[in-house]
Amino acid sequence: MNNKRQGTLFVISGASGTGKGTIINSLLENHKNDLFLSVSATTRSPRKGETNGVHYFFKTEDEFKELIENDGLLEWACFCGNYYGTPKKTVDGMLGRGIDVILEIEIQGAMKIKAKDIGAKFIFILPPSFEELRKRLVERRTETEDVVEKRLQTAKEELQYAVEYDYVIVNDEVDKAVEQIEFIINAEKCRVHKNLNLISEVQKS
Amino acid sequence: MNNKRQGTLFVISGASGTGKGTIINSLLENHKNDLFLSVSATTRSPRKGETNGVHYFFKTEDEFKELIENDGLLEWACFCGNYYGTPKKTVDGMLGRGIDVILEIEIQGAMKIKAKDIGAKFIFILPPSFEELRKRLVERRTETEDVVEKRLQTAKEELQYAVEYDYVIVNDEVDKAVEQIEFIINAEKCRVHKNLNLISEVQKS
Repeated sequence: MNNKRQGTLFVISGASGTGKGTIINSLLENHKNDLFLSVSATTRSPRKGETNGVHYFFKTEDEFKELIENDGLLEWACFCGNYYGTPKKTVDGMLGRGIDVILEIEIQGAMKIKAKDIGAKFIFILPPSFEELRKRLVERRTETEDVVEKRLQTAKEELQYAVEYDYVIVNDEVDKAVEQIEFIINAEKCRVHKNLNLISEVQKS
Repeated sequence: MNNKRQGTLFVISGASGTGKGTIINSLLENHKNDLFLSVSATTRSPRKGETNGVHYFFKTEDEFKELIENDGLLEWACFCGNYYGTPKKTVDGMLGRGIDVILEIEIQGAMKIKAKDIGAKFIFILPPSFEELRKRLVERRTETEDVVEKRLQTAKEELQYAVEYDYVIVNDEVDKAVEQIEFIINAEKCRVHKNLNLISEVQKS
């Protein structure tokens, strides 16, 4: 009976260094058939090792603008002269088939989707502390000290948006954070408005 | 950090024969320290084997009316000349200590609590089908055929209130139903408004 249920769009945000990527990879690994990661469209050039349709849908500026005009994007933005956006078609297709979709996106994009009121659920990932976040960013050894401090400052500023989300997860231990998101995904499947078909089937039985 | 989180009141309803009791006992067994079953107050006389404070808080009519006058009840009703109600004090005490509370209650009582808008979450337990519900009620051998038919009719009428709840659970297999309620309980712990202290602690770190 349950396969008539519409999927849920889970929008996940969190500062650089909170471990979003690791958490999401682990979630996808655990849910190969019922969880799909939304792939963004962009006009920027592919980097070495990036595959079209896997890392991004690479588009020309004309193609991207056509998507905008045809209301083909859930949200879009322009950074450093390149367009980035979330194609609506694949997301809607998955949700329609009852598959939940994860969208990893920065706060501004998440807030644009929230404003559309399309039933998405918003999860904010917190570091255990800013001390720990600094440690993680430093240990990556990919950024200079200045960049690390700037990222921390941004993360602190962005934290004020956490209250705009539905759920918060502290990434203290990855396995625990993954488990908590799984609780949320499974609980959302029990929402009344996701089960109106089921209620009506029981009613008719 | 998390122990500053306020508990959640979970209001559970479902027709006679849906197996609410079995599900709730199993939940309490799994969560001896972090889940508490609310005990109702009543003016009816204790039946054989019933213990004050375990099955009910047995009250005189004067004591019960005093509770009503002092706003000491989350909800109350009068059936067959006896008063029944949910004492606020114990529930609030548990929630304040971060312990989640389960309240098993019929739909009218649940709707009274919903109207109070105190942040409770409402779970409706469905039978897999009315055919199965009839089978379960008949197998109990505690009711006559007429009573079984009347219970089924009531259950069908009550099903229309399911949409007023936050979550629905189908009790097809008890273990699965218990697991789904555990998903809900755990997901609700991640709600942003339950974690404002946590967010502010990270902010200060």
